[in-house]
Amino acid sequence: MGFSIPNSDRTDVTQIVVVMVGLPARGKSLIAGKVKRYLRWTSVKAEVFNVGKYRRTDNPHPDAKFFDVNNTEGEKARKAAAEAAVADMLKWFQDKDNKVAILDATNSTKSRRKWIYDKIVEANLLHLYVESKCDDEDLIMSNILEVKTSSPDYVGQDPEEAAKDFRDRIRNYEKVYQTIDESEKNLTYVKIINIGARVVINQIQDYLQSRLVYYLTNLHIKPRSIWLSRHGESEFNLSGQIGGDANLSERGQRYAKMLPEIVKRSGLPKNAPLTIWTSTLKRTSQTAQHLQKELGWEKLQWKALDELDSGMCDGMTVPRTDTLSPDRILTVMF
Amino acid sequence: MGFSIPNSDRTDVTQIVVVMVGLPARGKSLIAGKVKRYLRWTSVKAEVFNVGKYRRTDNPHPDAKFFDVNNTEGEKARKAAAEAAVADMLKWFQDKDNKVAILDATNSTKSRRKWIYDKIVEANLLHLYVESKCDDEDLIMSNILEVKTSSPDYVGQDPEEAAKDFRDRIRNYEKVYQTIDESEKNLTYVKIINIGARVVINQIQDYLQSRLVYYLTNLHIKPRSIWLSRHGESEFNLSGQIGGDANLSERGQRYAKMLPEIVKRSGLPKNAPLTIWTSTLKRTSQTAQHLQKELGWEKLQWKALDELDSGMCDGMTVPRTDTLSPDRILTVMF
Repeated sequence: MGFSIPNSDRTDVTQIVVVMVGLPARGKSLIAGKVKRYLRWTSVKAEVFNVGKYRRTDNPHPDAKFFDVNNTEGEKARKAAAEAAVADMLKWFQDKDNKVAILDATNSTKSRRKWIYDKIVEANLLHLYVESKCDDEDLIMSNILEVKTSSPDYVGQDPEEAAKDFRDRIRNYEKVYQTIDESEKNLTYVKIINIGARVVINQIQDYLQSRLVYYLTNLHIKPRSIWLSRHGESEFNLSGQIGGDANLSERGQRYAKMLPEIVKRSGLPKNAPLTIWTSTLKRTSQTAQHLQKELGWEKLQWKALDELDSGMCDGMTVPRTDTLSPDRILTVMF
Repeated sequence: MGFSIPNSDRTDVTQIVVVMVGLPARGKSLIAGKVKRYLRWTSVKAEVFNVGKYRRTDNPHPDAKFFDVNNTEGEKARKAAAEAAVADMLKWFQDKDNKVAILDATNSTKSRRKWIYDKIVEANLLHLYVESKCDDEDLIMSNILEVKTSSPDYVGQDPEEAAKDFRDRIRNYEKVYQTIDESEKNLTYVKIINIGARVVINQIQDYLQSRLVYYLTNLHIKPRSIWLSRHGESEFNLSGQIGGDANLSERGQRYAKMLPEIVKRSGLPKNAPLTIWTSTLKRTSQTAQHLQKELGWEKLQWKALDELDSGMCDGMTVPRTDTLSPDRILTVMF
């Protein structure tokens, strides 16, 4: 679809720091990674600066006590990591082609956020705070389980111990955590509550900020699968004609009939609540008809999936187009 | 730009009632009208149902007392108007091509919103409540001034009397007004506070709802002007070549030099803080150069404004294209 692409290659796009905010296990790194991927897909140069990575150079496997507010040594080490990440980030922005840095850390206190804010303003950058607030216990638990097997903080440790320690770490953060509130209303921020069930948007002004907010409010953080199929052979395919709205050929019909079996064999989970999307053209709708009947999925049509219009050449065969003079064909092109 | 168009002509778009919420003079009708225009521009059939219009058939010129909560007659008449508007709206939705109805009224109490919600659910429609909350006195005043000269409620009346009465009407609404709050968290809603300075989005699920929210969060309610200019004649224009990135011709340069004067004579307000947008091509940038120098406006480049790529025909003259065989030209087209 790419409806964002024409807007993202503005050469004037301002430089923005996206500052993640939230307790551990609230999907911050996942969001950071998705935002980076989305921006790069739209040709905006983006990078994630993960404070945890910096912290790990000196403290590769800290336990929960390291994150205790009363642990002065831990606090010092964590501040040093944040400083190193921010310094690298500011250096990265000196290349004016680099547009969006995502500062991935808990940034869970007002004073930490103010410290980052001052750095951002001093460097003449825009900011967007993104707080992920979540009390959905299922989601938090699945994040905790993910961490005990995949976090570099717990490499080589007993998974159950790791999960327990991580829960303790969260509790240490909870002691000092301050959600973004009225006292920070001068900040540009998005607060995403329970994965978008509720979203608060504050003081958005820049175009790219607004695109990011649109992306963030439409984020899916659980995996989804998409199966794609070409339409079966159509009668126009047989006659070599372009465009049009032909029926499937006999061979195309056979393909459509086999499609449910092909999809089933592709590792589809049973009773997956899928939706079939087709264009508004007969050949795609006919290709999907047996899928709809046999698997009982809803079938929707979307005009944007139609083949691009072939203009005055619609229905012509490629050989027949030479009856057109080149300048008439140019009229179609421009 | 039209980045919304490919997404809006989905043939499955659900039917949605947009329910406006807010005190008088908070821009509800303005928003309703803009939403309707935006949707129609993206080929989604939309209509505004203005409860005030229905109320005026029986009470063409009600005074503030009519809107007093203690006025049982007034309350009855206002409920009847809402019922008539909702009935017409539901009839309108029987045509499945009709997609979005905007119910334009104050809908300022929870019980009124609940009543509408039940009607919507019963008719198997989706809903989106849009509350405009505003304590920006300047904006409210300018709305009040607008009303005394343009509202059908005050036709033929003394403007000062009308403004006073309208202020009394607002006070009557304020007595019973309930903002959308936690107790209505099951509703899908957008709360727009002080024209987008802050926005709360709750329980958005449908695609079109999400497009509407994007539009609403980017709404400008004060008028803006856009001046458009073609680029001056380029050297390629002289030689009849397509595409490329040629300089302006001598005649084009003369046009660019005259442009600031042309713009000034077009009724431009003095010291208007305008921004110049050009494509990334030399001919448009050169066209804007004197505007930038003489009027001191910022000049930004946007690649999306570039001419569509002419592919393999770039730099060719129209006569020269006949050296291409038609099937090669088709390769460019598809």
